[in-house]
This record gives sequence, structure tokens and C-alpha cells, in this order.
Amino acid sequence: MSYAAFRAEIGRINDLLCVMNLADWDSRVTMPPGGTDARADQMATLTGLARGMATGDALARAIDGAKDELHDGDPRLAEVEQAERERAILTAVPAEITEEMAGLKARAHAAWAEARASSDFAAYAPVLRRMMELNRRIAEAIGHDGHPYDAMVSRFEPGMTWARLQEVYTALKDGIAPLLDKALAAEPARADILTRPFPVAQQRAFGLSMAQRMGYDMARGRLDDTAHPFEISQTRGDVRITSRFRDEWHPGGTFAMWHEVGHAMYEQNIAPEHTRTIWATDLVNLYAVGGASFGMHEAQSRMWENRVGRSERFWELHFDELKAAFPDQLADVSARDYWRAVNAPRPDFIRVEADELTYDLHIILRSGIEADLVAGDLDVADLPGVWNERFRDLLGLAVPDDTRGCLQDVHWAHGYLGSFPTYTLGNIMSSQLFAAAQDAPGVTDGLEAGDYAPLFDFMAANVWAHGRSSSPDRTLRRVTGGPLDPAPYLADLTAKVESFAA
Amino acid sequence: MSYAAFRAEIGRINDLLCVMNLADWDSRVTMPPGGTDARADQMATLTGLARGMATGDALARAIDGAKDELHDGDPRLAEVEQAERERAILTAVPAEITEEMAGLKARAHAAWAEARASSDFAAYAPVLRRMMELNRRIAEAIGHDGHPYDAMVSRFEPGMTWARLQEVYTALKDGIAPLLDKALAAEPARADILTRPFPVAQQRAFGLSMAQRMGYDMARGRLDDTAHPFEISQTRGDVRITSRFRDEWHPGGTFAMWHEVGHAMYEQNIAPEHTRTIWATDLVNLYAVGGASFGMHEAQSRMWENRVGRSERFWELHFDELKAAFPDQLADVSARDYWRAVNAPRPDFIRVEADELTYDLHIILRSGIEADLVAGDLDVADLPGVWNERFRDLLGLAVPDDTRGCLQDVHWAHGYLGSFPTYTLGNIMSSQLFAAAQDAPGVTDGLEAGDYAPLFDFMAANVWAHGRSSSPDRTLRRVTGGPLDPAPYLADLTAKVESFAA
Repeated sequence: MSYAAFRAEIGRINDLLCVMNLADWDSRVTMPPGGTDARADQMATLTGLARGMATGDALARAIDGAKDELHDGDPRLAEVEQAERERAILTAVPAEITEEMAGLKARAHAAWAEARASSDFAAYAPVLRRMMELNRRIAEAIGHDGHPYDAMVSRFEPGMTWARLQEVYTALKDGIAPLLDKALAAEPARADILTRPFPVAQQRAFGLSMAQRMGYDMARGRLDDTAHPFEISQTRGDVRITSRFRDEWHPGGTFAMWHEVGHAMYEQNIAPEHTRTIWATDLVNLYAVGGASFGMHEAQSRMWENRVGRSERFWELHFDELKAAFPDQLADVSARDYWRAVNAPRPDFIRVEADELTYDLHIILRSGIEADLVAGDLDVADLPGVWNERFRDLLGLAVPDDTRGCLQDVHWAHGYLGSFPTYTLGNIMSSQLFAAAQDAPGVTDGLEAGDYAPLFDFMAANVWAHGRSSSPDRTLRRVTGGPLDPAPYLADLTAKVESFAA
Repeated sequence: MSYAAFRAEIGRINDLLCVMNLADWDSRVTMPPGGTDARADQMATLTGLARGMATGDALARAIDGAKDELHDGDPRLAEVEQAERERAILTAVPAEITEEMAGLKARAHAAWAEARASSDFAAYAPVLRRMMELNRRIAEAIGHDGHPYDAMVSRFEPGMTWARLQEVYTALKDGIAPLLDKALAAEPARADILTRPFPVAQQRAFGLSMAQRMGYDMARGRLDDTAHPFEISQTRGDVRITSRFRDEWHPGGTFAMWHEVGHAMYEQNIAPEHTRTIWATDLVNLYAVGGASFGMHEAQSRMWENRVGRSERFWELHFDELKAAFPDQLADVSARDYWRAVNAPRPDFIRVEADELTYDLHIILRSGIEADLVAGDLDVADLPGVWNERFRDLLGLAVPDDTRGCLQDVHWAHGYLGSFPTYTLGNIMSSQLFAAAQDAPGVTDGLEAGDYAPLFDFMAANVWAHGRSSSPDRTLRRVTGGPLDPAPYLADLTAKVESFAA
């Protein structure tokens, strides 16, 4: 009965983590402002309970018992071993670090918000320095074979190392620089056509109609508005997305929605038999999720946002529908105008508003700084200077103040280190998977005709259904025949820039 | 440190129960249909965790330690003793009964829904019989001094007994019968004026504007639509209500909203120091709530719904505002027409649609049947016949089928027994508290002028702030100078009928 006990205990942990996802969703979508303090207590209690169960004796005994019970070669052993591995990582970090980190996060968030408002990095530096010291201790506790940043990244992208990332980043920098030059030298896109008054209700209706055509199942999902769009899952039956629509900026809410739809379709199509198992449970991050890794998740969202939604063919097919929603605003606009506008390069200071060509440069910048900080090669006091210097090297812009520089993101104040690279890994995997899909029967014809079912079906069968039961690397090799490779992504960017500049 | 350990453990249980309230709210308000199965697992896991903590060794040790630590006369002992009492009731019910009940509820709900649809009581009878057997065993496990129904009722209304209820019911029946005759003999109200097309958006806006004037704090609340209106709290900082607006039935959504607002103002105004303590935690029902009892809660909702919202003065003051929202629909209607229409007697088969005069008769009917069922004095097979006979006696109507008779409510299918009386206790206490408030400075003048702050302040200071730290009986005696007494309620009903018939 020990494998059964193991399944039951994981199921209970998963239930708890799903409810934490709900509470998180509620905090960002529906909770009245007065609920903030109580919710913080509730999240702390639930996290403590989940952590206690994941590191506790009952699960340990169930793991041992299940290993005794299952014979070598039994496929169910993979579940038990995965739980054992993740449990070891979670347990490795001493409780006093976790506790200090929890308190520090609250102080760091307040210090960061104040520093950002006044562009005063020095006031924030001490708390950030402590955060980095704690992260160094976490990295040592988790362990690594080379660079301490490996331990940070592997929590979000199992198997990924700083050495491998640097190779990938070099290839990207070398590949993107000439593309960016070429795109910037081309005839400018008609940016003004995106900032006309687009009533939000029609934006939402158009975006959602396309999202459902892509395959997002509204019987197992819902769409709400938030300042920062996100997707969150409580198992495949309830996968919610949010977006942020602005009246005079059409692409913002629409592409953000399709991005979240990519995440959501992944979660909605995890195989049903993985529900409440370790394959729907990230014990390292105490997070209920079906996707294989943060990077593999991002691959799905970037595919539907960029490879599909920002493709030229997509707008040849659907621009008339958009125009029907906004006949006056788009009367003087062609499908190609619109496509060029939503693909125009816009080098700027803020990552979350970056275009497709400059986005990875922001990530490369941050990853390098994170790696240096966690290794102790960069002192926190020197961060603004180093940031600005590297920003100029990568993007050719002089950062005017720290608010638009190293203070722009909240991640470090929250103690997160090592998740930024997964955005770029997602971009790369997105193109690899998309290229593989186009070789499958019906996918290319479907995209040509505006029938997204073949692409959806290919992803569902080959990527989504497997979820966490197949590692990112294994998934990539199975679907594309090889390991992580930036070439297809650079090829996609190149083709787009060539068409943009034509 | 044991009192501190006690507080910490109760705080964690409260956190968990608050999140269950959130998950319950979400299930009824925002969850997509696909989430149902996973949510059932999640609720089972959370309930199990909360029950485990409430009956577990850690709390037992903390209770014992706190009793050793606190000297006699320390007011904090009341907290510890309350937890000990409630824990004993929760623990008394053997786990196998709770488990069988959980499974039975699922089957009973399905059987009830089917039986109700086809008005086929016989198909539902066996599962209901088992439910009653389990409830009898629960009553014996909890213990009682007289009638087993005492054990059922006391879970919701501590200290209440079947003997006391029968005295109260007799007074009510004797008092209401002549009032109902008189109201039915009066000139009929203009019922048609309530069923005109009232657009829901304006209904909601008018209702909510009045709700905020009553004192509902939207910074610590929110309003949503559901089939069955309810209020739910996650501590005083986040107290949500729902209502159900129908296009051609104005009073439905509006009075239901004010009813829930009465509940919500109670929860929003529990003293802040009770947050996360036993005074915001019902261990017997594993429910996060600040109100003293189900009856005391209902007293607040019925006061704002009926004593305030259905008073003649209220509509003299506010009918013009309603008319401004619905100028065409109410062009030919006077304040008095409207007041008479929303107070008209409508004896009918369905409790949830009953008017103020017949409502308690429904409760009296159900309570008697519940008491007889749990005592074994009434066999489940005889329920429809007994229901119909008593219904004729009480309301003078011949029940045409069991769907409109004993199958109308879901309570018994869910295993609930003993909560119906709290509706009538709430009505009675509502008038007692309201009468006491009117003797306080400013309250009567406020009601006369449409200034609800004095009544709000009186209730907040004398009833709401105390919450569960003062028993219903103690609260009544402190505020009104005496115990439960139906006289003020009958006086209110009498005054209303006299004005209605004038």
C-alpha cells in the first residue's frame, strides 16, 4: 500500500498548492484591499503546511515504502524518484534561511518600491545585499557542480547551467545584433495606428474569440483584468488567465492575452491521469503546475503570442475581423501596416515593454548580473554602474536613472534569482517546437488557412500531455530530435526581419 | 509560552478555515464548471487538515499548557475554555460517522435532486433514512440533557433547546395567525408594480448605494451575482456578499442584498483584536466566522432587511431615489404603494420566497419534523404525509406535490439538522435588539431622517464588536436587559400589519 500512500500524500499536497494558486489569483483579481493582511497570514500558514507535508515524515516513509514495493523497471518508480529529488532540494535549504528570507522579502519589497519611486538605489542596497547573501547560502545548500548560479537556475529549469546559458546567449547576441540594425534601418512602422481609441470591450471580445479559436477552453478557464497579466492553474479543469487592456494601446492587452492563452492551453491539456500526482506538483517551488519547467511553459506562450499571433499570415487572415471590430480606427490601415506595427523594433529601457528583437537582450543583461551577484563577483553597491554600462553595450542606450535601470523589476526584492533565463529559453524552445510541428501533417496547411487545430493537436499530444513527466530536455529531443538549439529561433527572427524590411 | 502556542495554533486553524471560505465563495461565484471535481478534492483535504489540527495533539497540549499558565480570573481563560468546549464537541463525533456522512451527502444530493425533479420521494427515502440514523448517532455522541434535537440545534445556537423552542413557537403561532388573517383581509397590495422590467444594472446601483449608506464598507467587501445569495467572511477585512437580481422582480435582489449586508456589517465590525482567535473561529462547524451564533447572525440580516429596509419610513425617505432609477416603471406608483407591495402577505409553498408573516410558519413546520425525525418519533416513509398535514394546519394550503413540499430544501440531503430554528430565532432577536437600539440616543431620530449611522454605531459597539466572545444569551441580556423574548417581534409585526391594513 505504500505506493498508494505516496500517491495520497502527493495528492493532498497538490490540493493545498492548488488552493494557494486560487488564493494568489484571488489576491490579484478579486480581493478587496482590506483583505491584504489576513491573506498574508493565510498564505504563510498554507505554505508552512505544504512545506511541512513535503518535507515531513509521512512522505518520507511513503517514498521509502513505495521504492520497496515497486520492482525495478516499473514506470511508477519515476514518480517516486522525482518526488524524492524535489523533496531533497526543498529540504536542503535550512529553515532559518527560509524564515529570514520570508521576513526580508516583506522589508525588501517596501524598500524597493520606495527606492524605485525616488530612483534612490543606495537606500535599497543593504537589504538587497542581504538577499544576495541568503541566495548564496541557498545555492550552496542546494549544491552545484560549477557555478552557484546553476543551483538557482535549476530550480526553474532542471538541468540548465550557467555555462550552457552563456553559450546560448553568445549565439543570440551575435545573431540578434545585425537583425536589430537591419530592422531599425528599415522604413519605420506606422506606430500611430496602435494608439487610437480602441474600446476595451471590443478588444476583449476580439482577443477572446481568437483565443478560443487557438484552443483555449472557456469551460475550464476564465479571463479577468489585472495590472500584470498572468496564467494560473488549479489542475487542468480550472486554468485562468488575466490580461490588461488599455484604451489607446491595442496590442498590449491582445498579445498579453494570447501569451497567457499559450500557458493556459499547456495546463488545460496535461494528461488527466497526472492530476493530483507529482507530475502536476512542483515540490521545489511549492507550486501546483503541470508544465515541465518554467522555460518549457514560456515556450508555449511565446509560440502562440509570437510565432502564431505576430506572424504575417495571421494578420493576412484575421485583420479583417479586427477591422470589423474597429472600423473607424482602422479604416486607413492595411493588414501589412498592422503586422509591421506590432513587430517594429523599439529598443527601450523597460523589459516588460520590449519588442521581440530586444527582449532577449534584457534577459541576457539580467542573467549576467544575477550570476555575478550570486557568485560574489559583483558587489551590490556597484550594481547601478554595471547595469548601465552593460545596457549601453547591449542595447546602445544610456540609462537615465535607476528607476528605468536596475530598479525596474520586483524579482530581486522578492528573493527570486534564476528565473529570468527561462524567458529566453522559452523563446528558443518555442521556435524549435514550432519548426518540428510544421513538419507534422496538416500543421502548415492549418496555419495557412487559419485552422489552428493541427498545431494545437500536435502540441497537446507531443508536449502538453506529458507535462512534468518528461523533462524539458527529453521533451525537446523527442519532439525536435535534438537538444536546446538557438538556430531555429534566430531563423524565425531573421525571416521576420527580412519580411519587415522588404 | 503555552497561551502563545494556543493562540498560534488557533490562528493557523483560522487561516485554513478562511481559505476554505474563499474556496467556497469561488466555487459559487467565479469557478469555471470544469473546476468542480478538483475543488471537491481540495475541500476534502483542507477540511481534513483543519479537523486534524482542531482535534490534534498540538492543540490539546496548548490548551492544557495555557490553562496551567493562566491564573484564575484571567480573561484569556475564556478563550481557552471556549476552544476546549468546541473541540470536545467536534471530537465527540466518531471519525467513521463523519466519513460515512461525507460519502452519504454526495449520494443524497444526487438522489434528492432526482427525486425533486420527478417529485418522487420514495426514491430518496432510503438515503434520507440513513442520514437520520447517522444524525441520531451524532446527537448521542455530542450528548444532551433532554431531547436529541437539543444536540443538533446547539451546534448552531449554543444553549438553545427543543423545549425552549417549542414555547417560542407556540407564542409565535398564536401571535401570527390573527395578523395573517388581518393582512389577508386588507385591500390587496399592487403586486403588478414589482414585476415590471427593472434593468439589473440600476437595481444593483440603487441597492448598493443604500447598502453603503447603511454602513457596508466596500473597501473590505465586494458584491457578486449568484443563484443563492450569501455572505462569507475571511476576517473583518474581506467580507463578501452576493445577490441575485432578476429583470422583472425588483424586490428579490434588493432585499436579498440588504439581508446579506446585515450579515456582512456584523463580520466587518467584529473587534480587530478577535482576528485569528477562537472568537473568529467556529471549531464545531469548522467555519471561520465572527458572529456569536447562526441566530445572532440572522438577527443582524433580518434587522437591516426587514426592520429597516421594509419599514414604511424607509420608503417615505428613499422611494424618490428608487423612482429616479426607474422613472418610467414607477411613474404611477406612490411610496406607500411600494411599501405595501413589498410587505404583502403571500402564503405559498416555498420557504425561500415567503413573506415576513408566513416565513416563521415554514420554520416551525421544519423544526418539528426535524425534531421528530432525529428522535425517531417520525419514520422517514411517513414524512410527505406528515409534512402536508402540518402544512395545511399552519398555512392553510394543500401541498400539491412533494417538490413543493418536503423535497423543496437541500438541507437534509446535505446532512444538516438543527439550523432551521436559527432563522426564526434571528427574527425574534432582531426585534429585541432593534427595540433596545431605539432607546439609545440618536437612533430613532436617525431612522426618521435616513441617517443610519446611529443604529450602525449602536450595533457595532453593543453587538458586533463582541462577536463570539459573548454568547447569544449574554449579548441579548446585556443589550436588551432580558433573555430571548418573542414579544418585541410580534409587536413589530402587529404594527406593520395595522399600518398595512389601515
